[in-house]
Amino acid sequence: MLPDSENWFTEVCKEAGSVVGWQVDEHLDHVETEFQTIDVYRTRHWGNLMVIDGFVMLTTRDNFLYHEMMTHPALFAHPAPKRVVIIGGGDCGTLREVLAHREVESAVQCEIDEQVTRLSEKHFSELCERNDDPRAELVFDDGLAFIKNTVAGSLDVILVDSTDPIGPAEGLFGPEFVADCHRALADGGILVQQSESPLIHQNLIEGIRGNMEKAGFDTIRTLGFPQPCYPSGWWSATQARKGGILAPPSADRFEGSGIRTRYYNPEVHRGALATQMP
Amino acid sequence: MLPDSENWFTEVCKEAGSVVGWQVDEHLDHVETEFQTIDVYRTRHWGNLMVIDGFVMLTTRDNFLYHEMMTHPALFAHPAPKRVVIIGGGDCGTLREVLAHREVESAVQCEIDEQVTRLSEKHFSELCERNDDPRAELVFDDGLAFIKNTVAGSLDVILVDSTDPIGPAEGLFGPEFVADCHRALADGGILVQQSESPLIHQNLIEGIRGNMEKAGFDTIRTLGFPQPCYPSGWWSATQARKGGILAPPSADRFEGSGIRTRYYNPEVHRGALATQMP
Repeated sequence: MLPDSENWFTEVCKEAGSVVGWQVDEHLDHVETEFQTIDVYRTRHWGNLMVIDGFVMLTTRDNFLYHEMMTHPALFAHPAPKRVVIIGGGDCGTLREVLAHREVESAVQCEIDEQVTRLSEKHFSELCERNDDPRAELVFDDGLAFIKNTVAGSLDVILVDSTDPIGPAEGLFGPEFVADCHRALADGGILVQQSESPLIHQNLIEGIRGNMEKAGFDTIRTLGFPQPCYPSGWWSATQARKGGILAPPSADRFEGSGIRTRYYNPEVHRGALATQMP
Repeated sequence: MLPDSENWFTEVCKEAGSVVGWQVDEHLDHVETEFQTIDVYRTRHWGNLMVIDGFVMLTTRDNFLYHEMMTHPALFAHPAPKRVVIIGGGDCGTLREVLAHREVESAVQCEIDEQVTRLSEKHFSELCERNDDPRAELVFDDGLAFIKNTVAGSLDVILVDSTDPIGPAEGLFGPEFVADCHRALADGGILVQQSESPLIHQNLIEGIRGNMEKAGFDTIRTLGFPQPCYPSGWWSATQARKGGILAPPSADRFEGSGIRTRYYNPEVHRGALATQMP
């Protein structure tokens, strides 16, 4: 039993029979968009909390884990990540980490629902602090169509920072989209998909890896990391490379990048690459 | 709100304003001992769940993470872990992992509350499968006194697999106990303390590390790992060595050990050693 359900936001994970929740002090926003319902709460100890269709997207306190691990292992595995596209990622946290890499020349964020970004600007402004970077472009459109229409071989990294594989994001977990990503990537290009919990969603991860294999990717790795606000608190990003290996950077490259992180470092990267499915 | 509070066990973490919980189908046991209250539930998707004084101890589904990460990084960092003592650990899961190491000649588990072990034998029998190993000794006594009375320099590894730092386990987080552990360890010996969440309990971790430093330990490292059933889903074990470094084993040593794991491997070990406090 919760001490006072009125003052808690909780998310039940039906397939795992588990729940996570946070004490909330204020319901800051409630927006119904063409695509989904977005809520933002002020929590007692986790800063702000964004929820889409009842599923937790992020909190101020712990989103650094997800955003660092979606971004840095891919960008540091690529020798020259110049052209980056983020599909989804409307909170702009992944974009912020991408723009921390000096090699990046163009970072396009293609989010289907503009309201996610507008609410992030309002309630997670620190994640949007690099949105004015001249290398950044914010597009509000369908990610499936965006990748389909991308010139073949024109991207170095695609980061699929999606919601769960139900609702608007469902197609982002399908084989056609993954094949389109393969086509859009240059040789040596890297695709990353957020791939849910290594403990709860092993079938989904196998499906993602199967799609990547079928699409012709050569190296596929699933990297695990802690992520308190998601079911089980253990999450993953699955990477696929079009030619070439997936490896952490040298300590020199990481230190030379000047990028400050709270979780990621090359040794953590190496450990995440060794994640085995339990 | 939870869909039906009657059928959920939830644990609120007051200091973090967060909650985790599981759907439960049956309340299997309720035992009040001299030290604490122990409950065991059958959950819908996590196997059995043991709770002490309202705090989750373990579930069938995810305890491998904690038990592997409490044990293997220490035993593989030691060249010859022959004499091992576990303080607490009454569920016998840590003992099972310790006994997987062929170099171990003696593994003593000193748990203050015999009922924890009796209930584990009943509801988590897989964790107790090595309790009959002739190298194993189960002692039910006060861990503080046990370490104080241990011959100086007679142990290679001490694993403090305790409950939270309130109630019976409080003294296990104090400076005197840590100093006694230092005295009981041989040169090159390693102490491991479960040290709570890197996200929520940073002050506690700093305190543990401070005690270790004051006790004269030479190398101190806090290793993070996912642990779904504990608050934030991100947990840690802090290691301290009396002379010598803390490093992962070679791939040859790990493979030669014949130990099968679901999470631990030398690369994961290396990554965990690189955990930084956020």
